[in-house]
Amino acid sequence: MTVSPGETLARLRERKPLIHQITNYVVMNETANATLALGALPVMAHAREEVEEMVRFAGALVLNIGTLSPPWVDAMLAAGRAANEADVPVVFDPVGAGATTYRTETAQRILDELRIAVLRGNLAEVATLVGVSAEVRGVESGAVAAEPAAVARAAASALGVVAAVTGPVDHVSDGERVLAIANGHELLATVTGTGCMSSAITGSFVAAKPDAPYEAAAEALVAFGVAGEDAARGANGPGSFHVNLYDALAALEPATLDGRARIT
Amino acid sequence: MTVSPGETLARLRERKPLIHQITNYVVMNETANATLALGALPVMAHAREEVEEMVRFAGALVLNIGTLSPPWVDAMLAAGRAANEADVPVVFDPVGAGATTYRTETAQRILDELRIAVLRGNLAEVATLVGVSAEVRGVESGAVAAEPAAVARAAASALGVVAAVTGPVDHVSDGERVLAIANGHELLATVTGTGCMSSAITGSFVAAKPDAPYEAAAEALVAFGVAGEDAARGANGPGSFHVNLYDALAALEPATLDGRARIT
Amino acid sequence: MTVSPGETLARLRERKPLIHQITNYVVMNETANATLALGALPVMAHAREEVEEMVRFAGALVLNIGTLSPPWVDAMLAAGRAANEADVPVVFDPVGAGATTYRTETAQRILDELRIAVLRGNLAEVATLVGVSAEVRGVESGAVAAEPAAVARAAASALGVVAAVTGPVDHVSDGERVLAIANGHELLATVTGTGCMSSAITGSFVAAKPDAPYEAAAEALVAFGVAGEDAARGANGPGSFHVNLYDALAALEPATLDGRARIT
Repeated sequence: MTVSPGETLARLRERKPLIHQITNYVVMNETANATLALGALPVMAHAREEVEEMVRFAGALVLNIGTLSPPWVDAMLAAGRAANEADVPVVFDPVGAGATTYRTETAQRILDELRIAVLRGNLAEVATLVGVSAEVRGVESGAVAAEPAAVARAAASALGVVAAVTGPVDHVSDGERVLAIANGHELLATVTGTGCMSSAITGSFVAAKPDAPYEAAAEALVAFGVAGEDAARGANGPGSFHVNLYDALAALEPATLDGRARIT
Repeated sequence: MTVSPGETLARLRERKPLIHQITNYVVMNETANATLALGALPVMAHAREEVEEMVRFAGALVLNIGTLSPPWVDAMLAAGRAANEADVPVVFDPVGAGATTYRTETAQRILDELRIAVLRGNLAEVATLVGVSAEVRGVESGAVAAEPAAVARAAASALGVVAAVTGPVDHVSDGERVLAIANGHELLATVTGTGCMSSAITGSFVAAKPDAPYEAAAEALVAFGVAGEDAARGANGPGSFHVNLYDALAALEPATLDGRARIT
Repeated sequence: MTVSPGETLARLRERKPLIHQITNYVVMNETANATLALGALPVMAHAREEVEEMVRFAGALVLNIGTLSPPWVDAMLAAGRAANEADVPVVFDPVGAGATTYRTETAQRILDELRIAVLRGNLAEVATLVGVSAEVRGVESGAVAAEPAAVARAAASALGVVAAVTGPVDHVSDGERVLAIANGHELLATVTGTGCMSSAITGSFVAAKPDAPYEAAAEALVAFGVAGEDAARGANGPGSFHVNLYDALAALEPATLDGRARIT
């Protein structure tokens, strides 16, 4: 399977997959708008009463524990089991794993009980989940006692997932191979929820290429990184960058995207 | 009663009615800001402990099931009953009715148990509620086996409401008459929550013209559509359009609004 | 202790304190982004299962009852008690106190059961909490039977807090002294959640100057007001002003900030 973000983006825009997101209160509007700007169709639904029915129509399920609480975790697990039964790929964003015991244990429980296609997190979050010493401040990554590529590979191998570790350079691994993606812009770190957006976009790409989550995850990070680069042009700070980011996602051109990928 | 969006907007800005909204997590900030930009006063309150007291001060109550769950539905019903007792008009947005059984049944329950002034939804949602076959993908409208004008009329007649069916052309009916509103812009479909915003603005207009919900609902859609047209100028995509939309709502001029209405 | 917003801002950006916010659904993204743009690190966490653990890593805790409900109030009290034990300063924003009995009683309960460093509210909210007759419409301040400076002083004295009463001119009191801050712009009143943002920024400044909450609260309102002045330049309405506000917070210059303070 080749890596071609442009080709997958074209397929995504043609199929407009429904991306079911059970995510945090802080970024719901942002991840929905990022999904929609990219060309997929977001739906937010978290009630135990409907998640299993909703997810069966979805091209992917994105779970995010940014503002977790017990009823939401129950819904995530129920939706995840239904997704697994229906072969709907699941992307998991373990926001703040390592910051509190509740977050770490919930992330481990989700990884134990569900079949996760892609785990997308920052370095400290993913390191925590494979037992590497890491400093987490709230939901931000601090000092970590390992290199990102090694953490991605270890997580993928130990957890049986594709691991996408984002940072200044992103690393995606299936447990054997590792792709490094150097697209992106430092302004992405100045807006809340860009990590969550990257998870939503990962879900969108995986929905368009469900048989190749390793390639799809890398393609998603290329696309989001390129949009970040475009959004930075003319931005005066985090506010205008944030606005530009949606414009840039919508303006991504499948025909030129592969040529802009900085992937090794 | 004549249709004059400009006159009603002027009255709204003078009175600044309080618009109590029990809505979804995705768009709370957006509908509050749209309400405020238009010139009314939003308040978000959903606790069973306070909704009945809060709604008695309101000029309208807007209910929206976009991210429904049992405690929120209970609060919507309690607030709705208090609004009905106090003759505060209720606008209902049945987000995603038809997508899951829980959404459809909750929408029907709200329509059964409350006196709804205006039902504002997309074509598939409203069609579902009057038994017309409709495809719903998440919260988006798909193929529907009837014309929007017919669906609006049927819904208004069967449910005893004013029905406002939004889409490329909006249709408002009281069960007998139908108004078609051609204002708006295709960029409105690229931003999450513009449907929810149109419901909030409908509530604001109904609060300013409570004795004429049919006219008020049509006027609201003219105003929102004109703001969409203004917002599209200079927009580079969904992000900048979204920002412009608040500027445009605040800049709407009562004196010129009637002349810009594309209503038949 | 001198008042120097520039010096405290410089310290804040160097230390990047974690600001734990338990706030309302409407503004979570906005207060997180304002905190981040200023230079501190926001974290939103509200589950009873983790708030006590999370708050111990924080430089300040910000409580906001804008969309309160019983489980959130329980979490606020638990987090507040843990913050008090760990000497983490607590900022409280009593959104809508006076609008409903539930809000007023919850605000009083938080003030009774916790040691609050800074109470940040609008005139009607703070007046309500010290028994001054005030009109509250939803979450907006109406007519109040006392001057802001007197209300700030009375609240600080009666409640044992630093009181920060925001409005066209802000007033901060420790019960004896009163500082009046005339920075700001009328466009701040056209965007939902700017009051909540000012509370988040107050928390950030208090975290950078925990031994002097009176000075820190005044400095925060200078910084936020100056950002509002900068954001108004080139704004075409509430939407573009809102975007500019994040750019302006990020662009605040410690070296020039003291010179721009309009404080008496």
